[in-house]
Amino acid sequence: VPTPTSVQLPRPRHGVWFWSSHHSWHLFCYSVISSSISCQCTQSFPGESAFTSWRPAFRYYNMWVSLFGALLCCGVMFVINWWAALITYAIELFLYIYVTYKKPDVNWGSSTQALYYVNALDSALALTTVEDHVKNFRPQCIALTGAPMIRPALLDITHTFTKNNGLCICCEVYTGPRKLCVKEMNSGMAKKQAWLTKNKRKAFYTAVAADSFRDGVKSLLQASGLGRMKPNILVIGFKKDWRTATATQVENYVGVIHDAFDFELGMIIVRISQGFDISQVLQVQDELEKLEQERLALEATIKENDFEEGRSGICGFFRKARTLNISKHETKKDSTINTIQSMHVGEFNQKLLEASTQFKKKQGKGSIDIWWLFDDGGLTILIPYILTIRKKWRNCKLRIFTGGKVNRIEEEKLFLICKYHRQIAHINVINHGKMERS
Amino acid sequence: VPTPTSVQLPRPRHGVWFWSSHHSWHLFCYSVISSSISCQCTQSFPGESAFTSWRPAFRYYNMWVSLFGALLCCGVMFVINWWAALITYAIELFLYIYVTYKKPDVNWGSSTQALYYVNALDSALALTTVEDHVKNFRPQCIALTGAPMIRPALLDITHTFTKNNGLCICCEVYTGPRKLCVKEMNSGMAKKQAWLTKNKRKAFYTAVAADSFRDGVKSLLQASGLGRMKPNILVIGFKKDWRTATATQVENYVGVIHDAFDFELGMIIVRISQGFDISQVLQVQDELEKLEQERLALEATIKENDFEEGRSGICGFFRKARTLNISKHETKKDSTINTIQSMHVGEFNQKLLEASTQFKKKQGKGSIDIWWLFDDGGLTILIPYILTIRKKWRNCKLRIFTGGKVNRIEEEKLFLICKYHRQIAHINVINHGKMERS
Repeated sequence: VPTPTSVQLPRPRHGVWFWSSHHSWHLFCYSVISSSISCQCTQSFPGESAFTSWRPAFRYYNMWVSLFGALLCCGVMFVINWWAALITYAIELFLYIYVTYKKPDVNWGSSTQALYYVNALDSALALTTVEDHVKNFRPQCIALTGAPMIRPALLDITHTFTKNNGLCICCEVYTGPRKLCVKEMNSGMAKKQAWLTKNKRKAFYTAVAADSFRDGVKSLLQASGLGRMKPNILVIGFKKDWRTATATQVENYVGVIHDAFDFELGMIIVRISQGFDISQVLQVQDELEKLEQERLALEATIKENDFEEGRSGICGFFRKARTLNISKHETKKDSTINTIQSMHVGEFNQKLLEASTQFKKKQGKGSIDIWWLFDDGGLTILIPYILTIRKKWRNCKLRIFTGGKVNRIEEEKLFLICKYHRQIAHINVINHGKMERS
Repeated sequence: VPTPTSVQLPRPRHGVWFWSSHHSWHLFCYSVISSSISCQCTQSFPGESAFTSWRPAFRYYNMWVSLFGALLCCGVMFVINWWAALITYAIELFLYIYVTYKKPDVNWGSSTQALYYVNALDSALALTTVEDHVKNFRPQCIALTGAPMIRPALLDITHTFTKNNGLCICCEVYTGPRKLCVKEMNSGMAKKQAWLTKNKRKAFYTAVAADSFRDGVKSLLQASGLGRMKPNILVIGFKKDWRTATATQVENYVGVIHDAFDFELGMIIVRISQGFDISQVLQVQDELEKLEQERLALEATIKENDFEEGRSGICGFFRKARTLNISKHETKKDSTINTIQSMHVGEFNQKLLEASTQFKKKQGKGSIDIWWLFDDGGLTILIPYILTIRKKWRNCKLRIFTGGKVNRIEEEKLFLICKYHRQIAHINVINHGKMERS
């Protein structure tokens, strides 16, 4: 039989529980709000006004008061009732993990995103205070890839020596009527940058609309980049169609090279035998995809018809046969298109596609040859050297060809090693058409 | 009289001290080197290769091993001899503080500087993954200031609404023969960016060389910026000399405005009655400075002469008189130049100089008037709103003038408040030439 005291006790206990858990929730909410506000504040620059960008803000707001409030709440929660506080934390943690795991596909325009912006701007500004020093030289490349998916190999090779070191900007020049160009340019911008991100290329995409290719590149060479993050090397593919291209095109191409030198940029011309441009392949792929989608849509409608016919019983038999006929006919047409295309361009495209991914693969045993004809500042040696420190190019040896006398090999080698601190496998001296290996 | 034990003891003790302190030093050095190497590593991107930019590196290097080594050393120092370790730390701390305090004016090309670069690039890349959202819109201005010191007021007003929010790029266009332009441009770049940093303007300086002003601005409008940090507003001073300027100049000016709209940028034209360009004043200041320096140099030579004459005794008396005469004559000439200049341009320059600093000062009580003639997206209201949240502009009220009917004031007000979440002091409705205040 319970004593009077033991009967009376449970009630106050429950009361305490409700009271304290109720308080825990309130305090927790307040603490979360305070701390998130206090976090938000860090997104504005430290300075005169602590407003979160230009969003309306409370006049007497101070981030440290918020932080203090948040910490105080956490403390008081435990003081009031430690196990209610623990349960509250457990539930909140569960909710947090749930939201993080589900990742609702909503763009909140959150303050985290605003923080990214402030970070980027702040560090770009901090960089402007850094003085130039030869030790901190970095290859900052502007690659004329057009849309980055069109010339993936050119982007790959550029990325190989900028990946962990420097800037890489993929450029596209739109020529033609301006209104149209700008519209096309702006609509494609997000897609192309997303492609770069998706393919893990640490590069920026930029586009300009100009009257001519050369004018566009001139704009990019001079104006692109921010503060210290400015291109100092132009990477361009070899003009494969220089025999068949119009005089204006060739003039533009050569003009771009001249411009690069005028604006004091380095210059890299990359050549692979198949050429970089795989827009043909992409076009075919697009068409095939479209056909595939059409086929799928057709199949879906046929299935639907089947289902309907199934419901309408035997009466639908003739209709079914007819649709099947149609579908067979359609697929036949598809396959004929495919065969014709594959006969025409299949083999060529296959080679092109293989060539376009060649810099993604591990390079076999081979050598990187440098024709070092005069001391032009060292970029000719630096870029190949950076290649050799990459995993994929590890098996490639550096070979330097240089003019001079055979008996000066050791001297030259010493000079190079002293000046560029590089370990070089071979130096070959070319003298009057003969070639000897050290 | 010391006992044999007390005589023998000091020796081993000293031995221990030397031994342990010797070890402490070695361990400390090793620990410092390890930790600095481990720090260096963070400057390369997390990824395939952990090389510090492209500098040669040890093949089997791992940053965590270095960190572990550093920590181990610190631990072992205390285990071997705790007070020797403490003394070592004290000395090292002193050396560190000494170097930090002295700040030797040497550019080491240090890895800290390299770190700035990697930070800036990394955060700019992270920003490209952020999707656009109206909440995170920021005014990113490109201001046609020329050299930033030439039009400080234009920079000030732009900086007022980009300071804690967004990007500000100061642009200069060089026109003329290209080789010359590029040379001049590149030589002035560091100086002008340094001016911005020194004057605490969070802005970037960019310059282009182009055939015409309009072409240059076109390049900048399209190509400047990196990834998401791209200008979306063009800030330009009002062309004060439009009556006297040549047709080409005016055409260029109007063309720039057209270009900005074509490339889908916002447009701000700022006008102050005195004009923004203070290059005249700067020129005069430069001249005065030069004269002042000449005067000082002259005085120094006179003093030197005095000193020499003092040594040569009374014999130098006549010579002294002569030099004094000369110096008096010189200073007279100086002052006449000054008077003429000040008579001519002094008053005008004073006004110009005052006008150029007007946005640095606290603005008095006044109002910011907006003529909101149609709903153009809200930039017309956002920019003045950002002005009002600055300390210097706190006493200025927003007044919005809008077309429509008098009885629709409350409606319009509600619409504006709902749409832009702003508190607006006054809305004035203009109707058939009449103006009424709500």
